[in-house]
Amino acid sequence: METWLCEYAWLGHTAHNVLIETASGSITEVTEDAPVPDGATRLKGLTVPGFVNAHSHAFHRVLRGRTETGADSFWTWRERMYDVASRLDPDSYHRLARAVYGEMALAGITTVGEFHYLHHGPDGGRYDDPNAMGAALLAAADDAGIRLTLLDACYLRGGFGAALEGVQVRFSDGSAAAWADRVDLFQPGGDVVVGAAIHSVRAVDLEAASDVAAWAHGIQAPLHFHLSEQPDENEACIEATGKTPTRALADVGALGPHATAVHATHLGAGDIALLARSGTSVCLCPTTERQLGDGIGPGAELDAAGVPLAVGSDSHAVIDLMEEARLVELHDRLRTSARGGHTAADLLAAATIGGARSLGRDDRGLSVGAPADFTAVRLDTVRTAGIDDPVAAVIHASIAEDVTDVVVAGRPIVSGGQHAVLDDVTAELAA
Amino acid sequence: METWLCEYAWLGHTAHNVLIETASGSITEVTEDAPVPDGATRLKGLTVPGFVNAHSHAFHRVLRGRTETGADSFWTWRERMYDVASRLDPDSYHRLARAVYGEMALAGITTVGEFHYLHHGPDGGRYDDPNAMGAALLAAADDAGIRLTLLDACYLRGGFGAALEGVQVRFSDGSAAAWADRVDLFQPGGDVVVGAAIHSVRAVDLEAASDVAAWAHGIQAPLHFHLSEQPDENEACIEATGKTPTRALADVGALGPHATAVHATHLGAGDIALLARSGTSVCLCPTTERQLGDGIGPGAELDAAGVPLAVGSDSHAVIDLMEEARLVELHDRLRTSARGGHTAADLLAAATIGGARSLGRDDRGLSVGAPADFTAVRLDTVRTAGIDDPVAAVIHASIAEDVTDVVVAGRPIVSGGQHAVLDDVTAELAA
Repeated sequence: METWLCEYAWLGHTAHNVLIETASGSITEVTEDAPVPDGATRLKGLTVPGFVNAHSHAFHRVLRGRTETGADSFWTWRERMYDVASRLDPDSYHRLARAVYGEMALAGITTVGEFHYLHHGPDGGRYDDPNAMGAALLAAADDAGIRLTLLDACYLRGGFGAALEGVQVRFSDGSAAAWADRVDLFQPGGDVVVGAAIHSVRAVDLEAASDVAAWAHGIQAPLHFHLSEQPDENEACIEATGKTPTRALADVGALGPHATAVHATHLGAGDIALLARSGTSVCLCPTTERQLGDGIGPGAELDAAGVPLAVGSDSHAVIDLMEEARLVELHDRLRTSARGGHTAADLLAAATIGGARSLGRDDRGLSVGAPADFTAVRLDTVRTAGIDDPVAAVIHASIAEDVTDVVVAGRPIVSGGQHAVLDDVTAELAA
Repeated sequence: METWLCEYAWLGHTAHNVLIETASGSITEVTEDAPVPDGATRLKGLTVPGFVNAHSHAFHRVLRGRTETGADSFWTWRERMYDVASRLDPDSYHRLARAVYGEMALAGITTVGEFHYLHHGPDGGRYDDPNAMGAALLAAADDAGIRLTLLDACYLRGGFGAALEGVQVRFSDGSAAAWADRVDLFQPGGDVVVGAAIHSVRAVDLEAASDVAAWAHGIQAPLHFHLSEQPDENEACIEATGKTPTRALADVGALGPHATAVHATHLGAGDIALLARSGTSVCLCPTTERQLGDGIGPGAELDAAGVPLAVGSDSHAVIDLMEEARLVELHDRLRTSARGGHTAADLLAAATIGGARSLGRDDRGLSVGAPADFTAVRLDTVRTAGIDDPVAAVIHASIAEDVTDVVVAGRPIVSGGQHAVLDDVTAELAA
């Protein structure tokens, strides 16, 4: 048994002097206004359920700060991303992802959802272990001490009626059946959740999308899909199918309480209603949507309709879920000129238990029986000075750098801002 | 004489191993690829000209994280800001501003432009020293070790055809002539620049605006004005005068190379042309415009038209000029879906020499004869790992927390991330 005494902890409400007891990786007791016990580890600041990064493409981290050199667009950025994708193999991907997940751990992220489409060799053939790239991601998460939900993506074509081109052959199994065969072979056990992804309506025809959805829903696995990230996608989908991407995916049974739409930037009112009625989560990725010039999704409207929200760092231009969370609100302000569509507590929920729900994880937060995953954020910085409400301080004025301690399954993986296992995440990232 | 050896320095281009020699507060020598001299202070990372915060309302810092509780708008936010304004006197304003300027120093800001309208007592009467509040700001900047351009604002009415209301009486001199009489009394000497501000076309009638502009241009003092921050302002101005705010200010002679329009969010093409032709600077305040739901100004169009840009932290929801600078580009991406309208070097220029120009300061950057004001930003963080170009790393991936050393007039005011004079900026801010 381990005991942790939190100066403040977020239990759905903000509580003071909270004692958290853990055993065998789970929370066994939560006591408010607790006296100071001997041997407890003190966590200063606000302790929150571990941040959950619901949408990651680990290898995009390489592009940070390297695509800012001139006029381009989402589509030219994608060319540069493809160039990185063409050069990775299981060993180099393991090293890269381990450093990226290390950066996530330092930022207080305890679970990542990896939207994984780089699963084949450079010529499009299978590796000897057909899930070698997935195994590399799993090893990377293990090294970094964080939990992984692997969302293995079906990706079959270059666009509506378009063949795969160049590096895209690495993304394809050839058919939904072959995709399912490969994914069924991956049984990592332990704590890993294996889920499915339909890359997008661009990259997966609706018949195949239906098969992937049936695979996922049949075992109640999480199912993710990129949705309406760019206006072009909507136009092409309507032209090809007569339906918006949301409607098309709804009609093949992809929506539902285990499903998550990523981005959901360019939606109509009918799309929002479909998502809400089906219990589908939406994962917003504001720092990436800003980086790529995608536009601003209807965050307030989704929230008002009752759609559960999560957030993700996606392309990793920034790895800071507090920033992702506050940008859900702040970008809505830029879009609508209204303030306060999301409370700080709602934003914190999106970055923690909302992400856990989306990734097929227990979403109970800091409560008895839940996984012992939590993150302490300093409140004694120049940024937060003068803010009385700890949740407002964390969501509206704190940064990843303020994370001091991170616990996963009762095990400290970051203490005093230092990673417990990885000696030098910065050097690994630079390499 | 002091010598500084910079690992990298930005001299308009990025140079390696740069020796900066200073004497009597100015730069006397800049040598690239310099050998390591004895006794030089080593500055790791990228050394840039000191950041210049071209638009500040120091007392707004109190509102950080305290107005995020529910649905509201720019106008309801303003009510809360007025409540803070009603409670300050010269002593308390000195203490508050000293902590805020201390936070700025820690963020690498070497010069602040304070847009100062809280110059009268609670009943609207003058203090015994009619510039007691301005003197408090000056003392605060002195304490924090940064330079001050005091932009003393004329503020005469509550809106088009509307009387002053409530705390607004503290902002008013009653007439432009009385404003000029008071400002003429303020002769702080030393390094302080005293400039003028027309609060906005809402708060100053055009005849008075003409007088303020003539006062400023007559002595080549910087002249700032809030411009088109909200659509309501445009509509009311057109209704009252038949002109856009930009056209109205142009017609009273307010534009010109010593003038700066702050925000400039809601402009038409004709407005941009007027600003460009007259050599007027524009100070964008993206974190505040985002906070308040103002909207996104036409940054790329202003830049393309040749309008000099500066940035400011304004309401101090965030004090981080690297973030302000990158948001000029990133918010344009959200607005236009295009990437790369501003290079990283252009954004760095806006946050340094662009601000200096706007504040009536030498704008030559790190060069012989320029003021010895510079800021070193670490490049060895988990955020910047893997980015080869130091300017891209600082502008696109660094944060105020990464500032290690700040020198003003050849004097170190921050070393190793600690303020040289103020013991505990965080505690002062909390108080």
